[in-house]
Order: sequence, then structure tokens, then C-alpha cells
Amino acid sequence: MRSFDIVIRNGTILTMDAAGSLITNGIVGIDGESISYIGQENGDLINAKTVIDARKGIIMPGLINGHTHAAMTLFRGLADDLPLMDWLNNYIFPAESRIDSDFVFTGTQLACAEMILSGTTTFCDMYLFEGDAVRACKEAGMRSLMGEVLYDFNSPNYGSPENGLKYTQSLIERWQDDPIISIAVEPHSLFTCSPDLLVAANELSLRHQVPLIIHLAETEDESRHVEKMYGKSPVKHLDELGILSHNLIACHCVHVNTEEINLLRDKGVSVIHNPESNMKLASGIAPVHEMILSGVKVGLGTDGCASNNDLDLFSEMDMTAKLHKIKAMDPTVMDALTVLKMATIEGAKALGMDKLTGSLETGKKADIIVIDVNKPHLTPMYNPYSHLVYAARGSDVTHSIINGRLVMDGRKLLTIDLEMLLQKARLMSKKIKA
Amino acid sequence: MRSFDIVIRNGTILTMDAAGSLITNGIVGIDGESISYIGQENGDLINAKTVIDARKGIIMPGLINGHTHAAMTLFRGLADDLPLMDWLNNYIFPAESRIDSDFVFTGTQLACAEMILSGTTTFCDMYLFEGDAVRACKEAGMRSLMGEVLYDFNSPNYGSPENGLKYTQSLIERWQDDPIISIAVEPHSLFTCSPDLLVAANELSLRHQVPLIIHLAETEDESRHVEKMYGKSPVKHLDELGILSHNLIACHCVHVNTEEINLLRDKGVSVIHNPESNMKLASGIAPVHEMILSGVKVGLGTDGCASNNDLDLFSEMDMTAKLHKIKAMDPTVMDALTVLKMATIEGAKALGMDKLTGSLETGKKADIIVIDVNKPHLTPMYNPYSHLVYAARGSDVTHSIINGRLVMDGRKLLTIDLEMLLQKARLMSKKIKA
Repeated sequence: MRSFDIVIRNGTILTMDAAGSLITNGIVGIDGESISYIGQENGDLINAKTVIDARKGIIMPGLINGHTHAAMTLFRGLADDLPLMDWLNNYIFPAESRIDSDFVFTGTQLACAEMILSGTTTFCDMYLFEGDAVRACKEAGMRSLMGEVLYDFNSPNYGSPENGLKYTQSLIERWQDDPIISIAVEPHSLFTCSPDLLVAANELSLRHQVPLIIHLAETEDESRHVEKMYGKSPVKHLDELGILSHNLIACHCVHVNTEEINLLRDKGVSVIHNPESNMKLASGIAPVHEMILSGVKVGLGTDGCASNNDLDLFSEMDMTAKLHKIKAMDPTVMDALTVLKMATIEGAKALGMDKLTGSLETGKKADIIVIDVNKPHLTPMYNPYSHLVYAARGSDVTHSIINGRLVMDGRKLLTIDLEMLLQKARLMSKKIKA
Repeated sequence: MRSFDIVIRNGTILTMDAAGSLITNGIVGIDGESISYIGQENGDLINAKTVIDARKGIIMPGLINGHTHAAMTLFRGLADDLPLMDWLNNYIFPAESRIDSDFVFTGTQLACAEMILSGTTTFCDMYLFEGDAVRACKEAGMRSLMGEVLYDFNSPNYGSPENGLKYTQSLIERWQDDPIISIAVEPHSLFTCSPDLLVAANELSLRHQVPLIIHLAETEDESRHVEKMYGKSPVKHLDELGILSHNLIACHCVHVNTEEINLLRDKGVSVIHNPESNMKLASGIAPVHEMILSGVKVGLGTDGCASNNDLDLFSEMDMTAKLHKIKAMDPTVMDALTVLKMATIEGAKALGMDKLTGSLETGKKADIIVIDVNKPHLTPMYNPYSHLVYAARGSDVTHSIINGRLVMDGRKLLTIDLEMLLQKARLMSKKIKA
């Protein structure tokens, strides 16, 4: 007889480990925060406080959303299909000027609800009032890497850039030993942050050994601006400032050439690819296939809900595989397994969290989802990797465990009062639109 | 007091009519097969055998899938990420050589289940053993335009091409007065059909006044082949054969130039765009924005499940909007409303069915779906069009009515025994993979 806190059984386990192990009729045992057993069911008696029946579905690591602005869920659909500057200046920036702690808490909680319901267990966030975003994540029980956005102008949260660095430092100190929350230093971008602010942010991140996260080479406009200001491309500008390192997570990297890709690889920079946002805003197509071939660590992100407009990594995976095939005019590039890795173990590596999460291995934290395949669009199942990328949707996820805690059971959220949250979001939207 | 067979109330009605009418707190009344009332709830007493509460969600026309090979649901995930010819010759064609009536019935029923569950109420099909596909659609209660695939070689169903035309004619005669089934004549493509077969198929379609449906200009290989055989592009070749007309529905049209787009418009040819399939097979990006500007009727399709791999038109709409923005490097092209029209009223026009379906108007057949927006990814709702294209998924559809018949109620299929169907599909997959 074996005993566990939680057991998941009767499913195909996609471990996403280095060997690519797939276990049919598998069983996963969890004790406390961690995975204590993975194997094939062998008839041994099993005792567990909680038993989850995967109903011949898929048991796999929870997905990792490498880049978002969670609270922007409250702006979803506020403005679409507009030229970038019209969208930003006439809709997003005015709406953001009215936000506060309560907005960020509620918007982030809404994002956590959507992410858990669609199979994401870890995400990386950048926004304002991030202390309140952290509060929402702690309540929801989501693993997250979070940071206050820093820029040269005054913030409605912390005021001056200097205060922004202090605010970030206080977040780092407050959450340094938390089992699910990590803090990063997050200067917004090269066109909103002076070299001094970038260097100060980098120093803060190195001093505390936390990641530095930035938007990089997202649009042609950004490249033109940086070239004009500093006589260099965005990547080269960061390199000259001494900021390219293993510590850096660069979101987007749409406009980078081969030399810059090699530089990112050599310096150990991680890249987060956000295909749906890049398509919707017509920013361009990041050379992700080339980056992966070159050896750059690449994770997958949704970006914020104002430019996607959802946080469903299943549709993001589908889009990723198809976008890069059509870009290369080659159906063999970015196969299903490669893309699924970006949303799991490679995403964990990109965020520096692969010791904790991203694959199912004994000793790792238990961040696990179960996919119901007893549905017309997932029956029959010849190849689970193909199904996950090309046919499954977030709504097929039935159970989610984060850091050993069951947060969704049969699609019911256990850490969030959904009715109350939706009601609050509806009320808040009236102020936003006003 | 007003009486109806079915009433849907308490939702925002997107009529998709020519005026773009949107009715808040709306009510739709259905009598028999047709819509008998649309308006705002005004406190009048209403009496109905069936009352559907939309719970402040969206009430809209059912979606129209303009091109699929329904029974290929049974091949979903059998082979992916392969070069086109390897995929076709080593996986799809061998698998298809083993199919029979029972396969097509079951595969089509599986497709109907998936389509109803994801909001599609009308689809256009091309496959083998199409009489059995029709049987599955009739049972499921789906509106469909169906035809047996015709080509120069022998078919496992009907044998010779001459018999294929006879088989098609018998289908036309059998189903000519059916309220939900229509039959088309469906030669496969220009590289599998001789000019004689194409002309004979066109004559058959004109004689019976039913649509002629073909794959056209899908790949560069096809263009090269047709150019080599006939010294002309695919579109010009069909024009020379006298086949371009209001009667023709051309699927794909990826490789067409401006002159050919204008020719398609002038001849009244309809085009069905299948972006996910074209991306996954790396066929190319159809110039759909240009086609729509030029005045071509363009509908949206998923293509078969071997090359997509799902039948969810919500993700297809999302992909369409984003793909054409990135192609044009312009976020304003293919806005949400334009794309939603392709999947509703414009799709109906493309299939020649806009007198029946594609919008909610009194007198039209009642093909209606209800979308639940009481979910994190659809709350708050500033703009229902944006939500439908950029955030909703097929799983958000709760109710479906086709031709006045309730076929899904609170996500429960009423016309298909789902458990039995999935079990049958699983058993069948073992023979397919063997």
C-alpha cells in the first residue's frame, strides 16, 4: 500500500521531461507541494486523501504563460482593429490613467480565473500596482513571476522612477521566501526607459538575483526610435549598456536579425514569443524557428488581454505552430512537440523556473493539469501532442494543481468566488468605459 | 399574450442583418422551422412550449462552415507536421483506401457533434460515401450542402467517374425537397479532374440548378501542374472551360492574382477561405482582404480535420482576423465584424443559402445559437463582436437551434448519443491506425 496526499490516475502522462517520457495508464502521486511518484499503474493498493480520475485523458505539466499584463482583462474588447498609436493614445493610456489598486486586484483575479480554467499554472506579469496583483495571485494560488512596470514618467502607483525602484525592492524583500510568488525587476521598454533607468534596474535585479524583464524589439517603430536616439538597434543598445545576460527575459524580439539572435543566445538571454498579440497589433512575426535552432531559450506568452484578447495558451500554441509554418512555407517547422515544450519545460527554462516546474518529475513542485479527451473534437486520439496543440482548447482542462494544491476540480474553481468576481468586474467596466 | 413554439430571451441579439441591428434585452420567437419575431422585451406576456434563457449572453445566427470533409474527424492527429506529399501519400491516401459507408457515417456524425457543440449550424461537405454522410446529418439535424467527391480515378464508393456523376444525380433527386439537406456537384480539383469531367460536372450542376464546388488554386504545386498541362493558371483554365459562374463555389483560392480576383468577382464565383488548413499545410495566405474589397463573396471554412485539426469556427475567425493583419502589417484590416460576417451572412451568401440562413430576420429559418458570457474570459463585455472573434471559443455556445429544432440544450446534444458515438469512434480508430 502506498499513501499520498493526492493521486491522479487513469490517464496518459506526458511528463515533458528531457527523455520525452510518455506513460500510458499512468499514476502521479503528490505529497505536500511536490511530486513524489510517477509511474504506470501496477495493481498496488493506493491510499490518498484526494483521488483524481483522469478518465483516460491526459495528465501533464500546467502551462506557463511567459508574458502578460494580467489586470488588462478588464480592458478586453475596449478597443480593437485600430492603428497602434490610435489604440494606445486614445483608448489604452486614458483607460490606464484611471486605474487603481482595486482595479489591479480585480483584473488580476479575473486573469487568474481565466488562466486556471484554461490550464495555465504559472505566469509572468508586468503591470502597475503589482503589490495588489501579487495579492490576487496569492489568493488564487497561482505560481507567478511578477514585477512593477518601470518607466521614465510618473506612475499612478509609485510616483517617480526612483520610487519605482524602491517599490520593486520592497516587493522583492516582501516575497523572497514565498513558495509560489517571485518578483522581477521590470523596466517597460527601450522607448520608455532612459539608459540610466535601465542600468539601475539591471543593478537592482543582479543585486537580488532576480530576473530583469523588458519588452524588446516589438515593433519597427521601436527600432527606428532606438536607432535615432542611440544609433543602434534595440538589442545592440542593451548590449552596450551591459544588460544582456542570463538574467534577462526579453518579451517579443520580433525585429531581430541573425547576428542579434546569436548575441541573445551567447549572452543567455531568454525570449518570450507572443504570436497572437504580434499578429493582432501587426507588429511582425518573430523569427522563433531560427531562435530555437540557434539555441535561444524561447517561452510562449499571451501578452495582455487588450491585444490578444484571451489568456488561453492552447489557442496560442495552435497559432504558434501554424504561423511559423506559413512564414517558412514549410509544414514541418514548429511541430506540435516543439510548441508544447515552449508552453511547458522551455517556458520554465526561459523564466528560470525549470528546477520547480515545467515537467512532471519526482521532486519537482506539483503543477499539474488534467485534460478530458472524452469529447468529439478529441476522439479518437492517435497522438496526444498533436491533440493538445491543434485540437484542444482551454475549456478541455478539468483539474489543476499548483504547488500541490488543488485549485480546480472538475472545472470548479476552488480558490476564487467566480460569481462575486464577475459581478465586480461588470461594475468596474462601467467606470472604465465612462 | 404572444405564443411561440420556442422563445429565446434575456440576451443581446446580433442579427447580422444588412443594417447591422443589435438588440439589447432581446427576444426571438420561433414557430415551426422559422423565426416569427425579433425584438426588445417589452413586458408583454409570452407563452412558449420551450423558453431558453440566454442569461444576458449573445443570441446570434448559427455559424456556417463553408468547406470541410466531415468524416476526416476520424483521421485527426493521425499525421501532422509533414511535407504535403509525404502526408498525403504515406498517411492520408492509405488511410482513405480503407474507408467504407460505416466509417463515413460515424466520422460525419462525430463532425456534426463537434460542430453543434461549437456553434456551427450549417456546413458544406465534400467526401466519399456521401449518401452515408447525408444520413448522419439528417439524424443530427444539421443544415448541410453535401456532395460526393468526383475525380478521374476509381472511387471505393461508386467506381468510375461516370458512375460518380450518376451517384451525384441520384443524391440530388433523393434530397431535392429536403428542408435541411442540399446536394452539390463536387469535382475534387483541377489536378485530379480532366477537362471532360469538369465540364460534365458543371453541366450536371446547371441542369439541376445546384452548386458546383471545387478546390481551386490551393497550392503552388497545383498552379505549376495546371500551367504545365493546360498552359494557364487554374482560374483561367476554369474560365476557358466556361465553368466560372454564380453557380461555382471555389475553396481556398490561395494563389490568385488581382486580375483573377476581378474575374472571380465579375463571374459571381464564391470563395471559401480556410486559413488554418492553409497555414498548417503551408499552402500560402489567400488574398482575402483584397477579395472582399473587390466584391468577391467570401465565406469561411475549416477544411477537414486532418489539416486543421478542429472544426471550431471561433478559432478560425480569430486566426482569420490575425493572419490578415500580419500579412498586411496593418491592424485595421479584417476587423471583428467583417470576420464574423464571413462566418455568418457572407458565408450564407457564398453557399447560396442567404434566403434561408446566416442572419436573424423574421421569415428566415431559425438557425440560432446562444453564447454564455458569464465566464472570466468574456466578462466584462464592451463589444460583443470583438468578444466573439477574439475571445470566445466553441465551448461557450450553450444552445443551438437548427431549422427550428433545438439540437443542443445547455451543451447537451439532443440528436446524437454522444457516449455511444465516442465509443464507436475509438473502436474504428484501431482499424484505421492498423
